[in-house]
Amino acid sequence: MPSRQVDIDRVFYALGDPTRRAIVDKLTEGPLSVSRLATPLDITPTAVIQHLQVLEEGGLVQTEKIGRVRTCRLETAGFSALEQWVRDHRSMWERRLDRLGDLLDESG
Amino acid sequence: MPSRQVDIDRVFYALGDPTRRAIVDKLTEGPLSVSRLATPLDITPTAVIQHLQVLEEGGLVQTEKIGRVRTCRLETAGFSALEQWVRDHRSMWERRLDRLGDLLDESG
Repeated sequence: MPSRQVDIDRVFYALGDPTRRAIVDKLTEGPLSVSRLATPLDITPTAVIQHLQVLEEGGLVQTEKIGRVRTCRLETAGFSALEQWVRDHRSMWERRLDRLGDLLDESG
Repeated sequence: MPSRQVDIDRVFYALGDPTRRAIVDKLTEGPLSVSRLATPLDITPTAVIQHLQVLEEGGLVQTEKIGRVRTCRLETAGFSALEQWVRDHRSMWERRLDRLGDLLDESG
């Protein structure tokens, strides 16, 4: 899998919208054309294309136009960046909780 | 730890801004007042308060005003919701990759 550098800002921004998360969920079933994505989501192909652009910028989706059909599929780069951010911050959150635990022990 | 339901939209939105992520990173060192947060980030206390409100809505930060000082600390609910989302979607992304692997095997 080619792995490209993605801006974590764009990953969070892309996933902060329920329609874009629904597009991601649909694409886990496999690649789909824009019109096949639009129908069950009950939005216009134009709206889908705008959301896809944001998802592409976040490294979450790839699209490819062959003839007149644009096919969309999941990409891993954005998801990997998100996983990495969560992994890096889990220990920070845990440290904070440990410190809180210490304080409670001291006051107990 | 009390765990409250958070809207994943708000978690992603809150973390999609580098200043808000910087606030989160600062708070991993322990609770801080608004002015102690504002100084190293080189932004006004008013801007910090606006960012804190977004982080609070995402369940990532708690603030408490005692007298004239507002103290900020990390909260776990938002981070837990984010971890859960990543966990739920990891298998989806993996399934997609497996399917791609199958296709490559078939064509090989």
